[in-house]
Amino acid sequence: MTIQMHDLAGRDPALRFSPFCWRTKLALAHKGLTVETIPWRFREKDSLAYSGQGRVPVIRDGERVVFDSWTIAEYLEEKYPDRPSLFNGAGGRAHARFLNAWADSVLNGGIFPLVVADLFLAVDPADQPYFRSSREARLKTTLEATQEGREGRLAAFRATLAPLRTVLAAQPWLGGAAPSYADHIVAGSLMWPRCVSRFELLADDDAISAWRGRMLLLYGGMLGAAQRV
Amino acid sequence: MTIQMHDLAGRDPALRFSPFCWRTKLALAHKGLTVETIPWRFREKDSLAYSGQGRVPVIRDGERVVFDSWTIAEYLEEKYPDRPSLFNGAGGRAHARFLNAWADSVLNGGIFPLVVADLFLAVDPADQPYFRSSREARLKTTLEATQEGREGRLAAFRATLAPLRTVLAAQPWLGGAAPSYADHIVAGSLMWPRCVSRFELLADDDAISAWRGRMLLLYGGMLGAAQRV
Repeated sequence: MTIQMHDLAGRDPALRFSPFCWRTKLALAHKGLTVETIPWRFREKDSLAYSGQGRVPVIRDGERVVFDSWTIAEYLEEKYPDRPSLFNGAGGRAHARFLNAWADSVLNGGIFPLVVADLFLAVDPADQPYFRSSREARLKTTLEATQEGREGRLAAFRATLAPLRTVLAAQPWLGGAAPSYADHIVAGSLMWPRCVSRFELLADDDAISAWRGRMLLLYGGMLGAAQRV
Repeated sequence: MTIQMHDLAGRDPALRFSPFCWRTKLALAHKGLTVETIPWRFREKDSLAYSGQGRVPVIRDGERVVFDSWTIAEYLEEKYPDRPSLFNGAGGRAHARFLNAWADSVLNGGIFPLVVADLFLAVDPADQPYFRSSREARLKTTLEATQEGREGRLAAFRATLAPLRTVLAAQPWLGGAAPSYADHIVAGSLMWPRCVSRFELLADDDAISAWRGRMLLLYGGMLGAAQRV
C-alpha cells in the first residue's frame, strides 16, 4: 500500500526543501516503500489537523498517522523489520539520536543564516508574509541582514562540520559500509540549502562534498533529481 | 588474563586524567575485563616503544598490543563478543564514530581552554616544561592567558553541549536503555577537567550533570572514586 506524506512545497509545487521531509523521504526509499507526497504550505495548518499538530512531515500508512521525522524513522524500522534496516541494531538507533540532535542544532542552525533570504524567495508567495514575520521575530533583524556577508562566515560554518569529515575519512558512509538513517539525517539537512539557493556551502575538495555526491545517486538518483531554484 | 595498560599519570601517580585513557578504562570495565594500569608520563616515550608510537592509551592483551582509544574499543568488541557489547550492533559502532569525532573536536576542544592552566599544575613536574612549551606553541599565548576569563566563556561552552541534552531528554544513556561506548566517550572527556580542576563546567540543574552522576556510580563507582586535585 502506498504511504501518503505531507511534504513542504515552495513557490513551485515541485520545489521541496524541508530538511525534515527529506529525511523521511530518504527513510521511505531506504525501506523500499512507495510514497505519494502531498504538497503542503506553511499556512495550511488545517490540512494537518488529522495528525493533531501543525508541522510536516506527516505520514499516513493505512490507518496509522505518524509525524516528526525521528518518530517516523522509528515507526518505519519497527513496522517494516524485514526491509533494509535504517539503524542496524539497537545501538545504531540510540547513537543516531545524537546525530539527529547535532544536525538539528549545529547543522540546521548553521545553514539557516547562510541562506535565509534565498529561502524566503523559495517559499510559496502566500506563505512569505508568515515566513518573514515569524523568522524575523526570532532573528530580531531582517532576513536580508541575516544573510548578508555570508561569504565571510562560510569558513566558520565549514569548521563546524569537522566531525563529519573525521567519520568520512574512516568509512564511506555515516552508517559504516552502507548508508543508514544517519546519512539520511545529514543529507536531508544539506538538501535544504541545495534546493533553495545557488550559494554553495561546501568546498569542492571537501570529503563531505564527495559523500554528498554519492548520496545524490542513491535510490535512482532521487536527491540528484530534486528541483532546485 | 589481566590486560596491561599505560595510563597517563600526573604529579601524583594515582592522578589519572587523560580523556582517552578514561574511555579505555570504561570500555574494559564494561567488558568486565581486569586491567593493571601502568602510570606513564609525557616524557616516557621510550616505554611505549613496544607499541610503535608514543601516545597513550596502549593496552597489552597477551601477545596483542593495541593503541588509540577508538581502535582499542573496536578490538575489545571483536575479541570479546560474548561479553556485554560496547556498540550493540554494526550501526551502533558506525554511529559511535561520529560521537567520538564530536567529542574529540567540540568537547575536548571546548574543555581545553577552560582548564589548561589547572591541567599544567596537575601534570608531573618533570613533564611541565614539555607540556607548557608544546601547548603554548599551539595556542600562540600562555596557558594562563588562555584560561583567564573562563567564567565569561562558560555559557558558550555549555551551549555546544545542546545535542547531548536533547538525547538525554529522550533516553537515560547515550547508548539508549543502558550505557554504551558512546557514554564512555563523553564521560571520558568530562573526567579530564574533573580530575585536574575544581572549576565546574556543568550547571547543577543540567541534565548532563545528572547523567554524569549516574556514570560516576557505574562499575563499582570507578569514576566517582577517581583521584582529583
